[in-house]
Amino acid sequence: MTTEKPAQAPAPKAPAPKAPDASRRSERSRRAIYDAALALVTEAGYAKTTVEGIAARAGVGKQTIYRWWPSKAAVLLDAFLDLAAQADEALGGDADSGIPDTGDLAADLRYVLRATVDELNDPKYDGPTRALAAEGLVSPEFAARMTEVLMEPQLARYERRLEAAREDGDIAADADVRIAAELLTAPLAHRWQYRTRPLTHAYADALLTHVLRGLSPRP
Amino acid sequence: MTTEKPAQAPAPKAPAPKAPDASRRSERSRRAIYDAALALVTEAGYAKTTVEGIAARAGVGKQTIYRWWPSKAAVLLDAFLDLAAQADEALGGDADSGIPDTGDLAADLRYVLRATVDELNDPKYDGPTRALAAEGLVSPEFAARMTEVLMEPQLARYERRLEAAREDGDIAADADVRIAAELLTAPLAHRWQYRTRPLTHAYADALLTHVLRGLSPRP
Repeated sequence: MTTEKPAQAPAPKAPAPKAPDASRRSERSRRAIYDAALALVTEAGYAKTTVEGIAARAGVGKQTIYRWWPSKAAVLLDAFLDLAAQADEALGGDADSGIPDTGDLAADLRYVLRATVDELNDPKYDGPTRALAAEGLVSPEFAARMTEVLMEPQLARYERRLEAAREDGDIAADADVRIAAELLTAPLAHRWQYRTRPLTHAYADALLTHVLRGLSPRP
Repeated sequence: MTTEKPAQAPAPKAPAPKAPDASRRSERSRRAIYDAALALVTEAGYAKTTVEGIAARAGVGKQTIYRWWPSKAAVLLDAFLDLAAQADEALGGDADSGIPDTGDLAADLRYVLRATVDELNDPKYDGPTRALAAEGLVSPEFAARMTEVLMEPQLARYERRLEAAREDGDIAADADVRIAAELLTAPLAHRWQYRTRPLTHAYADALLTHVLRGLSPRP
């Protein structure tokens, strides 16, 4: 489902167990459940991943999972958000960090779009991402939640960086930053999802060049 | 899965039964199977649609379906291509007709993009399209077939129209028509798939404006 840069996914909204005292033990369980869900969906595929299977692999009871999440899709979404937050931390950023603003819009976007390409091509993200997207396609409720915690925050990062660029006069005053954000990210997601053509840095660069041309200030 | 304009989907590659004499009777069966598959997926959802259910509703034996198609996804893809071909015929076009070329690129693309919006919002297409996309996400083989018979031919139509525009000097000589085609269609598909924001004619128009700006010839 991810349009882009899973590593910059927002902080998990409520990945923590609902148990009021999130003891060290429940934190360990939560981590084991996330790891099990991500591993299973990558190894066996989404269709064959079950709450029972996740529980067995995590060494917890099935009821432990159902106490915290309503479905395997919900577990997987939180696991994915957690994975993305970890990747952010590893990069020295945090879940709220936006797109870099060095003052060079093209360079900043190029950096982020190339990183998105790398992540979409990373098997660690690919399986879970496809599973989430597939679930969103058949479940409107799940899609709404995914859009809220994943897609919209990702798009909002681009919008904020583009707004700053607009204020600096780097893009046209009448450019629609929302549309620009979608133009930068949707084609990558589409190539990834349908595997129409190779998803490469060169493609990300060419896409960026075309989009920036359309955004450039007019005399 | 469709990026755009299902009504302009290519002619079904081989929607006809594999039986060498496609008799009137087998044509009737084929039509009944298509209708049943489309109705079931819309009413009950993809997960609950089975080959058995399609066969029962179509009044044919399960083996009749398996003789012609390997899976419910394969039935649904051919049913969808057939539906799209019918829509083309109803519009007076045919499956091979491309994007109109009136000489006014913006008007031609606006027409096609608005029609795409209408179709993506049409419940008749929505259920089957989501089912196909979901299957493509979890099955690389199915995705490859879908890309071949649906996504690539759709993108090729845009590419051809944009190539004509480039020859006429309506867009920049160095514009990449493939990237342009993806910029025009992927954001619509993304809004449709994740329901991030309303998918309207106004959105299609704004998208087009932004993309055409980037493509316009430079002095």
